[in-house]
Formats: sequence, C-alpha cells, structure tokens
Amino acid sequence: MLSVRVNLKTRISSGMIRVNAPALKSTMPSVTSLTQLRFSTTVKPAPKLSLDDVNENVLKAKYAVRGRIPMRAEELRDQLKKDPSSLPFSKIISANIGNPQQLDQKPLTFYREVLSLLQHPELLEEADEALQTLYKTDSIKRAKRLLSEVGGSVGAYSQSQGVQGIRETVADFITKRDDGEISYPEDIYLTAGASAAVSYILSILCKGPNTGVLIPIPQYPLYTASLALNNSRPLPYYLREEQNWSTDPEEIEQVVLDAIQKGIKPTCLVVINPGNPTGAILSEQSIQKIFEVAAKYGIVVIADEVYQENVFKGSKFYSMKKVLRNLQKTYHGQYDNIQLASLHSTSKGVSGECGQRGGYMELVGFNHDIRQVFLKLASISLCPVVTGQALVDLMVSPPQPGDESYEQDQQEREDIHDALDERASKLFETFSRLEGIECRKPQGAMYLYPKLDLPYKVIQEAQHLEMEPDEFYCKALLENTGICTVPGSGFGQVPGTYHLRTTFLPPGTEWVETWEKFHKAFFDKYRD
Amino acid sequence: MLSVRVNLKTRISSGMIRVNAPALKSTMPSVTSLTQLRFSTTVKPAPKLSLDDVNENVLKAKYAVRGRIPMRAEELRDQLKKDPSSLPFSKIISANIGNPQQLDQKPLTFYREVLSLLQHPELLEEADEALQTLYKTDSIKRAKRLLSEVGGSVGAYSQSQGVQGIRETVADFITKRDDGEISYPEDIYLTAGASAAVSYILSILCKGPNTGVLIPIPQYPLYTASLALNNSRPLPYYLREEQNWSTDPEEIEQVVLDAIQKGIKPTCLVVINPGNPTGAILSEQSIQKIFEVAAKYGIVVIADEVYQENVFKGSKFYSMKKVLRNLQKTYHGQYDNIQLASLHSTSKGVSGECGQRGGYMELVGFNHDIRQVFLKLASISLCPVVTGQALVDLMVSPPQPGDESYEQDQQEREDIHDALDERASKLFETFSRLEGIECRKPQGAMYLYPKLDLPYKVIQEAQHLEMEPDEFYCKALLENTGICTVPGSGFGQVPGTYHLRTTFLPPGTEWVETWEKFHKAFFDKYRD
Repeated sequence: MLSVRVNLKTRISSGMIRVNAPALKSTMPSVTSLTQLRFSTTVKPAPKLSLDDVNENVLKAKYAVRGRIPMRAEELRDQLKKDPSSLPFSKIISANIGNPQQLDQKPLTFYREVLSLLQHPELLEEADEALQTLYKTDSIKRAKRLLSEVGGSVGAYSQSQGVQGIRETVADFITKRDDGEISYPEDIYLTAGASAAVSYILSILCKGPNTGVLIPIPQYPLYTASLALNNSRPLPYYLREEQNWSTDPEEIEQVVLDAIQKGIKPTCLVVINPGNPTGAILSEQSIQKIFEVAAKYGIVVIADEVYQENVFKGSKFYSMKKVLRNLQKTYHGQYDNIQLASLHSTSKGVSGECGQRGGYMELVGFNHDIRQVFLKLASISLCPVVTGQALVDLMVSPPQPGDESYEQDQQEREDIHDALDERASKLFETFSRLEGIECRKPQGAMYLYPKLDLPYKVIQEAQHLEMEPDEFYCKALLENTGICTVPGSGFGQVPGTYHLRTTFLPPGTEWVETWEKFHKAFFDKYRD
Repeated sequence: MLSVRVNLKTRISSGMIRVNAPALKSTMPSVTSLTQLRFSTTVKPAPKLSLDDVNENVLKAKYAVRGRIPMRAEELRDQLKKDPSSLPFSKIISANIGNPQQLDQKPLTFYREVLSLLQHPELLEEADEALQTLYKTDSIKRAKRLLSEVGGSVGAYSQSQGVQGIRETVADFITKRDDGEISYPEDIYLTAGASAAVSYILSILCKGPNTGVLIPIPQYPLYTASLALNNSRPLPYYLREEQNWSTDPEEIEQVVLDAIQKGIKPTCLVVINPGNPTGAILSEQSIQKIFEVAAKYGIVVIADEVYQENVFKGSKFYSMKKVLRNLQKTYHGQYDNIQLASLHSTSKGVSGECGQRGGYMELVGFNHDIRQVFLKLASISLCPVVTGQALVDLMVSPPQPGDESYEQDQQEREDIHDALDERASKLFETFSRLEGIECRKPQGAMYLYPKLDLPYKVIQEAQHLEMEPDEFYCKALLENTGICTVPGSGFGQVPGTYHLRTTFLPPGTEWVETWEKFHKAFFDKYRD
C-alpha cells in the first residue's frame, strides 16, 4: 500500500504539470482520498461538475436569437398562461426569429400531401376513391418516386451524403437557376438545415486560434457561435449601413492583410446574401470583387444563400456559383482555385418549413480528398432526417403547369410573397416616420435591422443596469407590448451604434401600431 | 509602397512564429505575392486546400460502421446495377448497420398513421368518411393532441429542448418503466437520435487531451469518433468475452487510477446496455458497482440504453436510473453526487425508425448551470426535427387496450420481436458449428460479435496487404457473397484477437447458408 501511495503522489504531481488547472481544480480526487477509499466499502461522494469543468469554447459561444430577450419572452408566455390579466398584453409576438409557421404561415399544400404519403405508404395501395379524395395525382406520383428513391421507407438511414435521386433533383435545380451552368449530384450534400452545413465546414477548416474566418458585421450569430465552439477567430468586416448595408471588398482585403500580419490565416469568408439581419442583396459586381480577394489569397467562400427566394420586387438575386462561372469563363485560369460552399434551406423562402430540418450544401472546386472528409464527418451523424431530404426535393422541384397541384401551389406562393412584401413595407414605413429610428429599405430576407438613435438617458440607465442600450430598448418593448425582438449587440454593430432585428412575419398590423405607441412613449420618457 | 512591403515582411515573419506550421505551409501567401498583387488587376491563384489545412481532430476521427468495408459494398452495389451478372452474387446484404427498414422491417402502422396526419393536418378537417377509411380513431386523436402541443404545425421550430408536452409523455414513460421513480420533463432533452446527445455531452465535458472518457472495448465507434473530434482521451476498459462480455468494475477503477496517475482527468464513463456490438446485458449488481466507482471519483455516467427494447426471452434489462434510485434510497447521501445522462432513440427497438432521427436524453443529478449549457448548445442548432420528436411521443406511449389500433399494434410488435429472436438464434447456431468461430449467445440488441480464430496464413496474407486480419475476412466475405459486415478492429478488441460485427436483421435464412458455405471454403483455402 505504502509504495502505491508514494507512486501515486509522485506521478500525480508530475502529471499535474501537464494538466490545465481548472480541469483538475474541482473534481480531481486527492491522493489520500484515493488510497483511503480504494478498498473501503462506503462511498465518499466527490463533488459534482461546475462550470469550471465545462469546455471553455462552449461557455464562450453565444446565440442571441435564442438569448436573454427571447428567454425572458418565454417566462412572460408562461406567466400569461397562468394569469392572462397579469400583463399589459395578451400574447407574445415572436419577431425574434424567422419561424413563419409559428406565426400562422400555412405550409404549401403540395409539400404536405407528399410528406403525408411518404409517412404512410400503405395509403398508396388503398382503394383509389378514398385516396383520390384526399390527395392530388401529382402528389401521389411524386410520393411514389421519392419512396423508390429512398428504398421504400423514410424510416431507413439514407446515404450520409443524402439520397442520390434527391441530390440529382437539386443539381438540376441549380443548373436551371444558373442558366445552364452545370451542377453535379456528387457535389451536393443534403443537410439538416443550413446550420448543420455551417457546423461541418467550420469544424473541418478551423484549426484553432490561428484560423481566421471573415464574417460580415452585422452577422447571423450562428457564425460567431460556431467559431467560438471551434476556438477559431472571427475576422469582422463591416457592412456599410449608409450605403444600404453594402459590402466593401477593399475593406475585406484590408482585413485579410491585417490578419496575415498578425499571423492569423484567413481561411474562410462568409457571405450572407440576401443579408441576415440586414435584408440587403449583393450586386453582381460586389460578388465579383469578393471572388477576386478569395482567389488572390486562397480563401474558401461560404455563401449563405438561404434567403434566395426572399427577394422583393425591384431587387435581383445573383447566385455566387453563377457569378463564379462567369468569371472563370472570362478570365481563363484565374479563378479556378476558388472553393465555394453554397448553402440553401427549406426553412425560409415560401417554404418556411423550419421544424422539418431540410437543406443542402453545394461544394464547388474542392479537392477530392477534402470532400471525402466532409463525407466522413457527415457519416458520424449517420444521415440527415429523410423526410427533410424529401422536402428539399419538393422545394427545388415544385408542381409544373399541367400538374393537378399547379394552380393552387402558384396561388399559395404568391399569397405568401405578397403578405411578406406588404408587412415589410408597413413596418418600414412606420419606422421611417418615428423619432430616433433610421431604417434601410429591405431588398430581401425576412428582417428589418433599424438603427436606434437612443437618448443619453437611455444609455445611462442601461449602463447602470449593466445592459447594452439596445438590449434595454428590446427588453422594454417586450415587457410593455409582448413584442420579442433581438438587440443589435447580438449581431454586431459599429461600436457606439445601436440596432435591433425584427422579422416582419407576425400577421396583421395591430402589433406594428402597438410598437409605434410604445416607441413614442419610450422617447417621451427618456428624451434628452 | 516600399515601406508597406517592409512592414509586411517584418510583421508577417514575426507572425509566422505564432502560427502553427502546417496551417501556413500550403496556403499562406508570401509577402512578395501580397505586395505584387495588392494593387494589380489580374489575379494570381493561391493554392487550394489540402489535407494539411484540415483540423487534425477531424482527420483522426474514424467511423467503421460506414468505413472501408461498407464503402466497398457501395461500389459493388453500383457495379451490380450496371452489370448484374458481373459478380458471384445478385445483391448486397447490409449486415453492417442496424437499419431495420432498409431490410424490409415494416414500420408500425400506428406511428405512420399519426405522422401522416401531422404532415397534412388539413385531412383532419376532411369529410369523416374519407378520413375514417384511411386512419384509425386513436391515430386521429393522437395527431390532434400532438398538433396542439407543437403549436399547429410540425413545420415550426420548437423549443430547443423539445416540445414541452412530448417531454411530459417521456417523463411519464420513464416513471412507469422505473416502477414509480419520478422523472421530470425539465430533465428531458429531445434530440435528433442518440448520436446528437452523445455529441452534446462530449463537446460540453471534453476540455482537451487531459480529459479522459471511459469506454467499453469493444464499443460502438461513435464514441471514439466523437472523442477524436473533441481531441480528448478514450480510457478503454475491456469487457470479459469469456464471461459473455460482462463488465469488470475493478478493472474500471484501475483504469480510473491509472488515468489520474498520468494526469488525465476521468470525466465520463460510457455504458452501452444492452451492448453494442456485444449484445450483452448488464446485471443489476454490475450497474451498482459502476455507480460506486462513479460516485467515488465524481465521474459522469453516460448510459447508452437505445437497445432497451431489444431484450431476448430469458434476459432482463435494468435501467441505470432505477438502479441509481435504489442505491440512493439504501445508502443515504452516498450516491447523491451521481450525474447520469441516459439516452434512448426511435431508431432501434421495434420502432427501427432510423431515418426519422428521433431520440431523447434524460439528465439526472446535474447542476442547474450545467443544464443551461446543454440548453444553449442545443439552441445553436435551433431544434431537433419536430416529426422525430412526435415519433418519440408515439414510441414511449403506444396504443392501449381499447384503442382501435391496439390489437394490430400488439401483433406487429410481437412479429418483429419473434423475427429478431429467430434470426439471432439461427445465426448463432450456424456460428456455433463452424470451425474457427466462437460466439457468445446474445441477450439483446441487434448484433452478434463472433470471435474469429484465423489461420496463420490469413494473418500473413493480411499483413502483406497491410490490412487487419478481420478486415481481410470481412472483405473476402463481402466480395464472395455480398454480405457486408464490420471488422472487430473498428470496435476494438484485445490485441491479437479478431472479431466481426453482424446484425441479424436481413430477412430469410438463405444468406446465412451462403455465409456458411463461404466460411468453409475460406478455411479450406487457408487452413494451416
């Protein structure tokens, strides 16, 4: 025993050196407790985990879209359930997150007919009358095709990269979208929404604190959160608010140069187009300039294009893939080193099927061995949900003229577009006439990101409460009206400026009027 | 310009020092290229990514279940499509992965009726006749309940922890399963299968090379893969094959002590019960002993209980939660420091709904602030697929006597159990009479993990081909019969021993006879 105790003592203390203190501090048992307890029958409890025992990268990660304000909203929602009259409002308006169907956007009927049949294939063998009353012929046809693609049941694991036949449909869609620039099924990776794709890309390409990833500011906080989880460095480039949140390629190149000077390797560049939270859409020329920098420094471009269907009248979306192909044709060999990952999702657009977790990623220009790494990583989580994969097929290949579903499907899509257009304008007009709010006209996506010109008294009181001034505004808005938004501090903004992000998804216009009333009262209270 | 060039040079070279070489080697642009290109209009391409640019942890991760043998099987499947007569067999038998519905296991009708309605709620407003012909009344009732729980549409994001009402159903199930030991909805986290839960737990608790996680050997390779991704240390404890793959708590404590001596903190202990790949089931006493070690050293217990429904006649499954509660009642205070994460999934059991990605995790005994970290991490990927959550509700709360679906549901479950029982015995008996194969009688799960006593000539030839001998056997089996299995080297085994894992899911018995023929010929060829 003695010799054992001595061994342990010496080895542990030598071991200590190699161990980072916090990891040991809280629960590493001491030598004496070991030797005491080793053969005792009664158990002396060791302490439980504390935050000291948690991976620092996870602790660092923040995700404001479901952060403090939305969590407060959940508390208030519960309070309303228990005591409906205890608050100055009767319900929570969730304008913090792009979740259309939570806000009563009706799913597209064609999608749901097909998914309903995929979940219950026996129906396809039922007596035609009953089936035909409930499902349209093209829905039945599509369900049969998809069932054979997935091998008979959506309950079986698919290939980790996604069902072959669905990847072919996606490739056809991209080829059409990009005026014949060919897309290949082998380059398509079906994913559980775009978030999963971002997580794959960053965990593969982030090697630690010396890896830098260029992200727009303001940004969708998934990017800073994923970078924190991967212990890598965000390299912010600011969007020019005064020029309708446009991108400045010269600033991007400067950020690249500064990073290299600091010994940080700029590895990826994130582009969100249409922009979240800004609602801006990139011009063709801006995209060309971004590729110029990417080609020059060998930086992977991550194109978050999940809002490509959310484009308002008068604006035009250019896919990065298409612009890249044009550059490659015009300047032979000069852009052939570009590596582009383009992301799409079934959660946005007119689909709005957030809970179904469908999406895809197209990898362009990556070497074979890198794509094999993507495949291996995907295989560790087995496969994306198969009904979500099917939904991607439906999104990229909707009913065509002559199909039984066509007319209704067109009508439903138009109604959703019009409703979004109308709500966006209504909210934009309201902001435009309010004191202390400056808002850019949105071109796409689902959000407005107005600038708050907050009185000094607000900033003072916020500091006193150890809050960001825009968080203070959002909290007041929530607690007085039930309207839940996200402060700009969650997305990033030029220091000293304040913003908030709101969706324009909530139905009706009443909530906008409530907001207007609140805002006036707020400024009357705090005006300098 | 000159001054710029000089600045860059000096700063970069100083930067170099702080950057890890491999990261730089391939794509960090040289000073001259920077200064040359800085203001030039033509673009000089930087090199593409190579494996040197990939996160080493991702490169290290291996996942044999979809590894080299299964990938070879995919190639052969494609070859059969192109030229059916080009191989000595007509189809691939996928015995490498527990994917029941790929192998024609019929999904439970009740599940699919409800999911079908959830995807197309309009049906619920349809004329009763048509609806009633296609759906049973209790399916309609359940669909209505779940729809109201999820707020009207499975297309909306849910709470990141999962739908409240479904977590309540899960808690009720656990309380009943554990003879009244109460489970709380706040402790339930709905996840996209058990894999997502494992990934959450390990990314939160792994802090780097000094974090150790005890895993059984042989193990399900998800654990070694996730540990590689988190750059943390597997601490293997060997299951005793000669005692039907039972667990040795004294060995576990020795592994803990050795780790501490090396300065590695044993943080988690993984228990897979029923065992994958071994098919063994833990005795109540073994579980008690494991908790004794866990309590003594403050180690989190991860209970992978996804096969809890896959228990053969004559064996009994003890849930770790129930055994823990008994210990806590018997020895006051001595086990109150235990932190247990128990995992379940809709992919296994009689459900076999792998492609639907449903599962849950119950966190027992964790401090509030640790559970908040789980919640934050879950919120970054927004929410688990909502139909998968609904499926969890159906799995843990099946039709009851008196419900219209009850009789059929019972029959379907019985048929699946009997089929699995029968196939397992058939395969076990076959192995038992074969030369050079030694197999333990399975008690549960979906696999057999026979030991291969391979002739010296096989080992020699395998070494010559730079393969593991068991991989050599599995490759020969695949290429001669189309039967796809996974070599023991993918799960871990005592050095110098060789195994393979096969499911007993493929229907029919013909494939077993083919295997038997192959095995005899193989041994005739290589027998010493």
